[in-house]
Amino acid sequence: MAALAGEDRLIAWLRRRARGAGGEGLGDDAALLRGGGGPWALTVDAQIAGVHFPPDLDPRLVARRLLAVNLSDLAAVGAEPRYALLALAAPPGFDHRRFLAAAVASCRRWGVQLAGGDLAQSPLASATLTLVGARPRGGRWVRRSGARPGDRLWLGGTVGESAAGRWLLAAGASLRSNRPELPARFTASEALAAAARQAVRRHLSPRPQLALGRWLGRQRRAAAIDLSDGLSRDLARLCHASGVGATVAAGALPAPPHLLGLAHLLGRDPLELMLAGGEDYVLLFTLPRRAAPPPLAGCREIGEITRETTLRIREQGRVRPLRPAGWDHLRAGGGEIQIEPAPGGAGSG
Amino acid sequence: MAALAGEDRLIAWLRRRARGAGGEGLGDDAALLRGGGGPWALTVDAQIAGVHFPPDLDPRLVARRLLAVNLSDLAAVGAEPRYALLALAAPPGFDHRRFLAAAVASCRRWGVQLAGGDLAQSPLASATLTLVGARPRGGRWVRRSGARPGDRLWLGGTVGESAAGRWLLAAGASLRSNRPELPARFTASEALAAAARQAVRRHLSPRPQLALGRWLGRQRRAAAIDLSDGLSRDLARLCHASGVGATVAAGALPAPPHLLGLAHLLGRDPLELMLAGGEDYVLLFTLPRRAAPPPLAGCREIGEITRETTLRIREQGRVRPLRPAGWDHLRAGGGEIQIEPAPGGAGSG
Repeated sequence: MAALAGEDRLIAWLRRRARGAGGEGLGDDAALLRGGGGPWALTVDAQIAGVHFPPDLDPRLVARRLLAVNLSDLAAVGAEPRYALLALAAPPGFDHRRFLAAAVASCRRWGVQLAGGDLAQSPLASATLTLVGARPRGGRWVRRSGARPGDRLWLGGTVGESAAGRWLLAAGASLRSNRPELPARFTASEALAAAARQAVRRHLSPRPQLALGRWLGRQRRAAAIDLSDGLSRDLARLCHASGVGATVAAGALPAPPHLLGLAHLLGRDPLELMLAGGEDYVLLFTLPRRAAPPPLAGCREIGEITRETTLRIREQGRVRPLRPAGWDHLRAGGGEIQIEPAPGGAGSG
Repeated sequence: MAALAGEDRLIAWLRRRARGAGGEGLGDDAALLRGGGGPWALTVDAQIAGVHFPPDLDPRLVARRLLAVNLSDLAAVGAEPRYALLALAAPPGFDHRRFLAAAVASCRRWGVQLAGGDLAQSPLASATLTLVGARPRGGRWVRRSGARPGDRLWLGGTVGESAAGRWLLAAGASLRSNRPELPARFTASEALAAAARQAVRRHLSPRPQLALGRWLGRQRRAAAIDLSDGLSRDLARLCHASGVGATVAAGALPAPPHLLGLAHLLGRDPLELMLAGGEDYVLLFTLPRRAAPPPLAGCREIGEITRETTLRIREQGRVRPLRPAGWDHLRAGGGEIQIEPAPGGAGSG
């Protein structure tokens, strides 16, 4: 079984303590409720200044990102978003109306009713959103635990671009209006500059894959998780929940345009960005061998589910263990990417 | 119509912008959902270090308080608590297990299933809880908008004690184990010291009035709000939602034991503590003229609802306007009690 990070161990401990009647329990991207007339899926996520977004980011972008990352959790279980509750804590001088107007507009765009909330003053801006989603008529909940040996592993879009965007922001990029501003060294080639701007946008404005999630809920069998903490870490979670392992084909991982060039300028390893960068907010999912998602969704098959409960990666014909790496929300320096060094030796074939 | 605080104005503005299909809208203590198989009541509240609790407070007490203040919102609408979602942000070194174990134990005590959550690292400890409540079989939702002229105004318990506890903490009191420690000047009389310790406990460990809320939901007509931001401010909200006014009898306000002595030592006005102290977490409610709550609940009739949409207070035979005062979560210095001076002159009889 793949090693769990501190955060996962804490959640496993909490799940044992919290076991009881009622909900189907902790462990999916959204809580799946069945009591009292459900079914509902509930999810909560926070965005904290200096942790999840630059402290000087336009409050409108914070609001949109807050909604997007939460909607991605509903997408992962195949839910249709319905209601939102917003808890906003902010220092004096924070532009509440700018934030709230954008939150309401984003809610409208995604068909969500802002139903309640809480306001507080705090030295640190943070916003916590709770979303309520409904199970579509005729659909199933998509769980992390639905993967079976022989299933194929899929990604809903490219990985690594959001992490590149975060490193670009750390390197001085900014988004004041709609056009990201870049430090000079990223503007030498127009193609690279366009890719860099797109990475900043992708990081700040992820697009939740709600239609893909609903499609998964209509399949005979599917498992899914949304990629928030890095492909390798979230794959470990999906495999742990399903009691399976997986082998990923490195060459099949869908990279955004010019990731190599961006990674080089940022001094990062492109494969690390893809495997452990995090905040991709695309769905990682499994389907039975012969099933395939609609061609227009931009999905890519990246590997297969194995009976043996380890994670492996196949790169240039060699198979080595894939160590879960990425965000651990409890580690010191949680705002930084945490890469555990992959063992150098080749694994078993 | 009573003047609204900055926070109330912002929420009114938000309500106009967020109007749409689905929920019954913002404005009660909990969001009342009817779509998709409901009915559910949802509420969210945050507790932030240095704002809602002392930064060095035992994480167990923070967890219990977080649950209690949220349960009080469900009590106000007459809901039965069912599910909780927890978003916890904390700095390195925070004792997550101590906090989470207490949260789980509190959930169990109140029949709540911890169904999901979110963990993040943050320089500032804050915890945001979302609660889902169900409408009891045969019950109604209790709304802020249900008050009618001629109804009687009731309080579910004493007011001012929690605010006295907050001032005691500011004056150096602490609660490390179960027994509050007091600065020497509060221990001269044993009766006063006992009242001071009780005030600290009341502030840190409020008791949500869930049974009272459910009882209100079984009445032919009732309106309610939970007192979090001060009696006068929350009364203004209830009256505003109902399109009515109210006259409060100062002499009928239920004070905790030794409030006068405590207020004197703290340099506070006891009536201000009762009217504007906040964080009482008892229900303020209205009932038709001849109805009365069960005698054991500790409720007190404190006034009546009027057709004229002003708030007034009757004190020693004189009636004067009652200015909404208390917590405004958007004001600078939101951690302090904000008292707007009451006009000195007597109002009309």
